[in-house]
Amino acid sequence: MQQDFLVPTPKDMAGGYTHEVHKQNWKTLRDAAALYRLTGEEKYAAFVRDGLLAYAEVYRGWPTHPTDRSYANGKIFWQALNDANWLVYVSQAYGDIYDWLDPAVRERLNRELFRPMADFLSVENPQFFNRIHNHSTWGNAAVGMIGLVMDDEELVQRALYGIPAEQLPKDLRDDDSGRIVSESGRAGFLAQLDLSFSPDGYFTEGPYYLRYALSPFLLFGLALAEERPELNIVAYRDSILGKAIDALLLEADPQGNFFPLNDSQKGMSLYAPEVVKVVDYGYALYGQNPGLLSLAREQGSVTLDEAGLAVATALHAGKAKSFRPRSIAFTDGPEGDEGGVGILRAYGAGDEQTTLVMKYSAQGMGHGHFDKLSYSLYDLTGEVVQDYGAARWVNIDQKGGGRYLPENQTWAKQSVAHNTLVIDRTSHYNGDIRIGEKHHPDQYAFRAEDTSLQMVSAIAENAYPGRKLHRTQWLLQDSAFEHPLLIDLFRATGDQPAVHELPTWYMGQLMTTDFDYSIPKTLQPLDSAHGYQHLFLEARGRTAGENATIQWIGNGRFYTQTMLTEPEDEVLMVRPGANDPEFNLRRDPGFLLRREGVSNATFVSVLESHGGYNPRVEVASNPYGNITDLKLLTDNESYTALQFSHKNGGNWLLLLSNATADPAQEHSLTLNGQPYQWRGVHHLIKYTNASE
Amino acid sequence: MQQDFLVPTPKDMAGGYTHEVHKQNWKTLRDAAALYRLTGEEKYAAFVRDGLLAYAEVYRGWPTHPTDRSYANGKIFWQALNDANWLVYVSQAYGDIYDWLDPAVRERLNRELFRPMADFLSVENPQFFNRIHNHSTWGNAAVGMIGLVMDDEELVQRALYGIPAEQLPKDLRDDDSGRIVSESGRAGFLAQLDLSFSPDGYFTEGPYYLRYALSPFLLFGLALAEERPELNIVAYRDSILGKAIDALLLEADPQGNFFPLNDSQKGMSLYAPEVVKVVDYGYALYGQNPGLLSLAREQGSVTLDEAGLAVATALHAGKAKSFRPRSIAFTDGPEGDEGGVGILRAYGAGDEQTTLVMKYSAQGMGHGHFDKLSYSLYDLTGEVVQDYGAARWVNIDQKGGGRYLPENQTWAKQSVAHNTLVIDRTSHYNGDIRIGEKHHPDQYAFRAEDTSLQMVSAIAENAYPGRKLHRTQWLLQDSAFEHPLLIDLFRATGDQPAVHELPTWYMGQLMTTDFDYSIPKTLQPLDSAHGYQHLFLEARGRTAGENATIQWIGNGRFYTQTMLTEPEDEVLMVRPGANDPEFNLRRDPGFLLRREGVSNATFVSVLESHGGYNPRVEVASNPYGNITDLKLLTDNESYTALQFSHKNGGNWLLLLSNATADPAQEHSLTLNGQPYQWRGVHHLIKYTNASE
Repeated sequence: MQQDFLVPTPKDMAGGYTHEVHKQNWKTLRDAAALYRLTGEEKYAAFVRDGLLAYAEVYRGWPTHPTDRSYANGKIFWQALNDANWLVYVSQAYGDIYDWLDPAVRERLNRELFRPMADFLSVENPQFFNRIHNHSTWGNAAVGMIGLVMDDEELVQRALYGIPAEQLPKDLRDDDSGRIVSESGRAGFLAQLDLSFSPDGYFTEGPYYLRYALSPFLLFGLALAEERPELNIVAYRDSILGKAIDALLLEADPQGNFFPLNDSQKGMSLYAPEVVKVVDYGYALYGQNPGLLSLAREQGSVTLDEAGLAVATALHAGKAKSFRPRSIAFTDGPEGDEGGVGILRAYGAGDEQTTLVMKYSAQGMGHGHFDKLSYSLYDLTGEVVQDYGAARWVNIDQKGGGRYLPENQTWAKQSVAHNTLVIDRTSHYNGDIRIGEKHHPDQYAFRAEDTSLQMVSAIAENAYPGRKLHRTQWLLQDSAFEHPLLIDLFRATGDQPAVHELPTWYMGQLMTTDFDYSIPKTLQPLDSAHGYQHLFLEARGRTAGENATIQWIGNGRFYTQTMLTEPEDEVLMVRPGANDPEFNLRRDPGFLLRREGVSNATFVSVLESHGGYNPRVEVASNPYGNITDLKLLTDNESYTALQFSHKNGGNWLLLLSNATADPAQEHSLTLNGQPYQWRGVHHLIKYTNASE
Repeated sequence: MQQDFLVPTPKDMAGGYTHEVHKQNWKTLRDAAALYRLTGEEKYAAFVRDGLLAYAEVYRGWPTHPTDRSYANGKIFWQALNDANWLVYVSQAYGDIYDWLDPAVRERLNRELFRPMADFLSVENPQFFNRIHNHSTWGNAAVGMIGLVMDDEELVQRALYGIPAEQLPKDLRDDDSGRIVSESGRAGFLAQLDLSFSPDGYFTEGPYYLRYALSPFLLFGLALAEERPELNIVAYRDSILGKAIDALLLEADPQGNFFPLNDSQKGMSLYAPEVVKVVDYGYALYGQNPGLLSLAREQGSVTLDEAGLAVATALHAGKAKSFRPRSIAFTDGPEGDEGGVGILRAYGAGDEQTTLVMKYSAQGMGHGHFDKLSYSLYDLTGEVVQDYGAARWVNIDQKGGGRYLPENQTWAKQSVAHNTLVIDRTSHYNGDIRIGEKHHPDQYAFRAEDTSLQMVSAIAENAYPGRKLHRTQWLLQDSAFEHPLLIDLFRATGDQPAVHELPTWYMGQLMTTDFDYSIPKTLQPLDSAHGYQHLFLEARGRTAGENATIQWIGNGRFYTQTMLTEPEDEVLMVRPGANDPEFNLRRDPGFLLRREGVSNATFVSVLESHGGYNPRVEVASNPYGNITDLKLLTDNESYTALQFSHKNGGNWLLLLSNATADPAQEHSLTLNGQPYQWRGVHHLIKYTNASE
């Protein structure tokens, strides 16, 4: 407040001067108004009033933002989305001082600033306001929250129900090719609540965007709970906001970083400032879960309202319990019938968490990636097998003004950038969002009750025409192994021979392989499209024998992946960086297991995490993996049986029914003359070999 | 003790089973004996006795280690060095129980285990024992410590004075080409004390090896202080051990990691277990510096002896003060006349430390790199401009048995791997240790009294025949800049045109440049030798205008390097990875500023650290640098005058005398008709431009 309150004419992209000043202004106004609310000192209210009047003086004279780089340009910022952010928070400020204001000033602000801004963000930009999309949720909340403050029922109705679809052109799309008019034809805040989440709270764009979208949901939701109690927003749709809060908090790795699904910038976390209100409102409105208190303690902050006070009081009273996220399968789609995301968490020695995420969700709208049945793996030390996330430096002006970079489309969204099968070097759905939006994989099975053997399994029938992809992954905890094993079974069936390439984007540095490879004299792009144009081929080897192992070190731990291989299989070691003129891509390593000329291909691997290395001590503990003799005993449309051994003895036989996941179904199978019988989708048998 | 005490027949390299068991054994024996010493419980003494007898049973029957991969194979381990480690610590254990042992057992252990081992490590391996080298220090200490325990004066004398040089062949060398017989002809522990350190405690191989070498110095030193008080080891050579302790603790970055000079594995730190005794003995023997107590607290451990008790007691009494390392210029060479290392530390806002290290030391024996006048830069977040360190994974079996990798020679030692000028793509001293050992740069000036402008300057006359390299670097603290600026002036003069390439090995990801560059379709090795064969050329650009800037982000901060350029200068963006068949090299980026066809080249740059970015908040603060109009106003054998401006106003003019660093010398210089006068080697003038 002691500095000048500046209202510069908008000019810059995100990260630039005018952008950052206006962004700071909404925070300053919000905080000053909160101080008035909490202290009653009029100097704060006067400061807010004068700031708003400064905006009112110039707002209507501003054209749309001169950068003209968004599907919906803002006036204050380069995109209308940021204008909506501004209005959401400034509405809170305005509400705090509204009754204190001179009526003439109120009238002037309403007429010259807020009503024009609300109209700009809605009827003047329907492609921004009327989608089922987090951008629109911000628009709805902004218009609704200012409408509640101004008691402008037209704005409130527009916010709740959107602009009627019949007033809009059909198939209007944004620059990410997301649909403007939803299939339902609905729009507005209630439609967002109904259509943005699956019934269990999953947000189709993923946790990075859920974190962002939850703010307007919670802020407008709370305002509605107070001003329009008859809507009963807290309980709306079987407490969907509470489920969304829960879903967000369950979509983070053991370090608290959100899974970087779809277009996510890495590093966003449970401990980000925006998640403070998620935790506090979740605690106050939905059951006072004491696990949330330990998150609040780590966040080190609470909301400046009754929810925050409840959290602080409970923390002070020692009610916190540790936050211990569980395994869960989220459904996707408003009806919960569009695939989903399966999250397995195994708690090992010292309660150390290993987390597997398999993604078989719907396209995820404009921010979705072509990564059906892809997975990522995490442990206490961070990412083990990574999802690349977005190619973007949010709000960093030097990198494309902070917007999505070209490589987001050409690399990050493509299938090969993910840990999933790529066929004929073509991305799933041919990399076309219009195809992707029509389809989704389906969960085949999810079993998390038995913590020693958890599994997630899903099928994608439409990623490639005429091909069925079926992936099953298990986390196996067994005292023979230091940490949980990841067992991966990927079955691809089709009627034409094809090239199958299965990437593993490991985090760390290659230690060694048990097969020979050669390195090229010069590095060439691996191919020309679908992300392959960004990959340099660093080495190429033909696997020998029935198993191939690749070892790496990452995060101070050793990892060994043992893969079942066929005689003609190849391993391609690759790294992004080709055709990357602005150095926008990270040079993280990966390898592709390649099998060509077959119609059906089944990939099996076991990933061990073992030992460790601390450069301060320079002792390598357990640097080698233990898995040997990985075998497929049978593999057909009915059953898959796979087996592996520990080099010091012990065999594990894992049986899977490929045709039905019915838990009550009885199965019988004869392998090598030995009959096996079990009930349910899968069955594990461990043989301890006393003679070894 | 509850497990079997195993003494397996030696077989494995470092990291392998037998290696790790024998390594654990020395720790177990040492700790068990200490428990006997501290508790008097005989079960511990008996355990140690039985363990030693188990070794005595088999030791003499073992051949030298079957791996045969060292210039001095051990018997227990692959290298005699590790056998010496074993004997140093087991001597402590033996000493703790010696008086308790049955005389017949003592006699047997002396005869069948310890005397043979001492002879093996000395007279049977003079190439190991008789060098001036950290390996030999371990050998000397092992032989001397067991000699003191056994009261075997022959061994003690051998340890103190070495094997007489006349009994050894001339020019015997180890596999790193280090000399076996020192020029002085001296050997043994006292010669190590006299010749291993410069008079101010600098260890020519660098801190990574000093950390390793200090253990035998301190352990044998303390044993001698007790058993041979007449030698007065603590005060020997003007308290050289105390100076070495101080030197080690001053050679770490703001995070406590040792500067990775020469063959250093990164991550070794002040908080490594071996440094506990350095801190504790430093505290107890050399002045009880309360700053060491805060290091001890961070280490979380003390030595199990009187020194450790003194530290723990003082910590408990609240005597700790923060450890705040100072700027210092270390000399190198036993006489302190072989160049050195200059360390500048600037403490900015919040006492945040920026650390610059310029290396102008002697070759550093077999572990030395060809990196004359190279520098590295650190701040609170870690490495900013890195020294590559060694190409080695110490004790990781998969990587060459834990030994130096081939790329240590072909890459890590070469000049281009460092932040120093490379001429005609040839390493300093032609990459030949025999030439390198004959020469060293010399300090030109070091000024650290004025904390707002610190400087280090050195000259290398022999890195390239007929060329003089003179580098001067300043850390400038000025309230106009958020963090200290690094100003770099590198003058190369010669009589023949040559290609000059100055690398900057920045840590982080490229943000942008202010000049155009093109990327090749395929990546080729930049050249064929002297490290260039490992560099892929990722981009090449011709600078435009008089300045070129390169921006990157690392550690959550922005960095901008502004370089003075000439019209034909090029920037080559490079990355190691070529000709690296085992994936041994890190893929960290760098760029070379290239100027060819000139006999004399002066490179000037200013590196700013500014702003920051936290992915949890997604706000980029101060993403752009502020330096403009970097200029050379004059540059000749007498003077260099450089100038730069802040984009918001203010000019800085920095004057340097190239001919004399005499602090009393008066200088006068006329620039653009304006006369300047000053006293001493350099002078800074700041103009604040009120009109801007």
